Amino acid sequence: MLTLDYANCLADRVGAHGIDPDLLDPQEEPARGIAHLTERLARTRGTGQERWRDLHRDPLRSEHLTAVRQAADEFRARADNLVVLGIGGSALGNIALQAALNPATYNLLPRGGPGTGLRAGPRVFVVDNADPAALGSVLAFLEADDPGLERTVFNVISKSGETAETAAQFMIVRDLLSRRGRRGPDHVIAITDPARGTMRRICDAEGYRTLPVPDGVGGRFSVLSPVGLFSAAMCGVDVAALLDGAASMDAPTCRPELATNPAALLAFLLVELGTRQGKTNHVLMPYATPLYSMADWYRQLWAESLGKKTDLRGETVYAGFTPIKALGTTDQHSQVQLYREGPNDKVVGFVEVADWSETDVPIPAGLGVEAIAYLEGGSLARLLAAEKRATEYALVESLRPNYTITFPRLDAFHVGQFIYLWEMATAYAGLLLNIDAYDQPAVELGKQATFGLMGRPGYEKHLRAVNETLKATDHVISA
Amino acid sequence: MLTLDYANCLADRVGAHGIDPDLLDPQEEPARGIAHLTERLARTRGTGQERWRDLHRDPLRSEHLTAVRQAADEFRARADNLVVLGIGGSALGNIALQAALNPATYNLLPRGGPGTGLRAGPRVFVVDNADPAALGSVLAFLEADDPGLERTVFNVISKSGETAETAAQFMIVRDLLSRRGRRGPDHVIAITDPARGTMRRICDAEGYRTLPVPDGVGGRFSVLSPVGLFSAAMCGVDVAALLDGAASMDAPTCRPELATNPAALLAFLLVELGTRQGKTNHVLMPYATPLYSMADWYRQLWAESLGKKTDLRGETVYAGFTPIKALGTTDQHSQVQLYREGPNDKVVGFVEVADWSETDVPIPAGLGVEAIAYLEGGSLARLLAAEKRATEYALVESLRPNYTITFPRLDAFHVGQFIYLWEMATAYAGLLLNIDAYDQPAVELGKQATFGLMGRPGYEKHLRAVNETLKATDHVISA
Repeated sequence: MLTLDYANCLADRVGAHGIDPDLLDPQEEPARGIAHLTERLARTRGTGQERWRDLHRDPLRSEHLTAVRQAADEFRARADNLVVLGIGGSALGNIALQAALNPATYNLLPRGGPGTGLRAGPRVFVVDNADPAALGSVLAFLEADDPGLERTVFNVISKSGETAETAAQFMIVRDLLSRRGRRGPDHVIAITDPARGTMRRICDAEGYRTLPVPDGVGGRFSVLSPVGLFSAAMCGVDVAALLDGAASMDAPTCRPELATNPAALLAFLLVELGTRQGKTNHVLMPYATPLYSMADWYRQLWAESLGKKTDLRGETVYAGFTPIKALGTTDQHSQVQLYREGPNDKVVGFVEVADWSETDVPIPAGLGVEAIAYLEGGSLARLLAAEKRATEYALVESLRPNYTITFPRLDAFHVGQFIYLWEMATAYAGLLLNIDAYDQPAVELGKQATFGLMGRPGYEKHLRAVNETLKATDHVISA
Repeated sequence: MLTLDYANCLADRVGAHGIDPDLLDPQEEPARGIAHLTERLARTRGTGQERWRDLHRDPLRSEHLTAVRQAADEFRARADNLVVLGIGGSALGNIALQAALNPATYNLLPRGGPGTGLRAGPRVFVVDNADPAALGSVLAFLEADDPGLERTVFNVISKSGETAETAAQFMIVRDLLSRRGRRGPDHVIAITDPARGTMRRICDAEGYRTLPVPDGVGGRFSVLSPVGLFSAAMCGVDVAALLDGAASMDAPTCRPELATNPAALLAFLLVELGTRQGKTNHVLMPYATPLYSMADWYRQLWAESLGKKTDLRGETVYAGFTPIKALGTTDQHSQVQLYREGPNDKVVGFVEVADWSETDVPIPAGLGVEAIAYLEGGSLARLLAAEKRATEYALVESLRPNYTITFPRLDAFHVGQFIYLWEMATAYAGLLLNIDAYDQPAVELGKQATFGLMGRPGYEKHLRAVNETLKATDHVISA
């Protein structure tokens, strides 16, 4: 199991910048309040927008595993390349799973069976931006590769089909396939609403295979649904182990005691430090390159769920914390100067892997240069662990609160645990802040303005508003 | 030339969250103060730690271009793979240049001449972390590739040679080459101090070719020295154009008027908003995937230069701002909810590319689905520009200050301009905050603690201090 060490968030370690340990006393209000929150979460489970909590349990678990594996088996055999078209919650989890569980050089490796250390499935490209370079560089590769497009599968992910970036990319790909005389259904698999919406209608009309985005599962909570599982399965990730990991985190995150419930405790610490002690920046800093993209997934979850202007009583609160991704040891040489000496406005969350044994790289003896001889006979994993502990110590010396989540090993099971831990921490944090963790009202205005700027009929007044608000001024320097 | 549009930082647009335009009046104190700062910078140019300001001028320019091109011509011919071993300022700029100026699929493309759209040089891997996965995945690729190691060049970058991560990686690579019977000088080129230090002695003993890290050029200001230029040149980047771009930004960033000096103005706006109006989080959000890694380079520059506990008078100030990288349009679906409705503690810096013409991707007509028909006949670049403008508008509507830096085109010249603009902005910001922008005192403690934990003789007391400070507690949850 993952462990959470929060000693460095307490006043014993970081003085007035930490939390009074008495607040964690089971007889005190915060700890007693948590029991009420677990009761509330027990009542709302599986209702409204909380169906994500059931993705790792039957019947959803079996339904999704069966459908995902069938589709992956079929498409994997005919694909050298998998191009995922999605954005936000339809991309960040896919990228994170791939980065965490396959080597960084995966796309460059020759293809081989599972367990060979080679590439277990097609190359994978997640195109999650509307810029021409993002899709263009993938199309350029497909053009230069032989057989390229012929052995490429496009996985379009959009619940509605109306997300502009994904819709535009899909139109480009559909046209390309058609111009090359390829049958769409041989190359496209969509993950979309099973019953309604624009993408649903397109898939029905074009005859595409589909997998469901289940009801009651919002984008940022969807990675353990087919949204995240299909591309992972295509690339050899053990998707059942992901769900098993999430399932194993279920009971711990329902415990009514603050001191034994890691999700409730994580939420309590971060909300308390964030709202009462000015630690509004929440850094997630894995000491493991493969987990760096997991911090991007966390960024969406934490920012979009908790960043809300109004609370559930309708009062203006401007709630939320700024999630920041950092990478150890890399960012010791970039951000730690600021984290120790700049404004004391952060909580740093370290993530480390206890056992790298199978993949550790020894540091050989033989160079014999005194200033760096202390490294000889060690290993990269040992150096990494020392640097992490040294940085933790240095932050404590500067009275900067921090905590550590430890993976026993880096594998699909523990990645599943990590995902579910943060999803539940987000649910608790939403309750503690008394906000709706499942909506995102502030993104609507930008969408409407985009429609106006792109000339969509009915949005003329938005176009006028944009041009009025942003009318040209002379506050421009042309260097 | 790049342009800087700062209208949305002013009170006209974002009310009390912006800057009073009167402060920019040439007769007022802030604007008059800038003239003094440009005078100071004229006096200190090329002295102490400010030699980076001369990298784009002769004699350094010619010296470096000649040496870098000679070395690149020689090594490029015999390399299919270039592995850069470096961290922090010896890696972030290299990654940023590669990402900005070569396609994301560069490593996958077949090799071809310049201008073919294919891969102009060796594949490039920048290994900037001590974790086993980072180096391990590259070694696994070299093992699986044929001829792999035989046609691989390792570019070790370390001024001192004592950076633990880089030293450890170098020891591993040196041993590997030796075990495979390869001559080190055929495979290793180092960028290091030309006269002193551990890496210098190693290079002399082993007979490695070297390029210089010039005196008076700190890591985070070194990208336009051989540190950044060599790997860029190896991969087909026009390194002379990078320096030409920097040179073209020289005169504008020396102008004594706040209203026409983009570096001074950027520094003034961000320091003013950061210190007086609580906008302590400084987001850099390129609307261009290729420029996303440039935000990592900016993160080091801004965080490590300005994050300082004491000012030059010795007073405790906890200065600095938290640089945050974001990506448009991607982060509209992840962070913009928070940026609009969370705490108003940010300045968002957009970066956009005006003209994508050569690489734009048209969105074809033909799907004919009403809800997304407005996209047909457009292009990805047009959609991207609309989404950026829509987001800018949405932020202004929420009274969130923001500015935009526009690249006329994405090429080496304008990347050079961008780099020098931010370096000069950092110099001005350091003066405005009255701190030393060139040191990083807070990273020493972690280095000493690492030495202690790794058993380096002489650091036993640091080991004891770490273990005393971080002694085990029961504030751990094992889920």
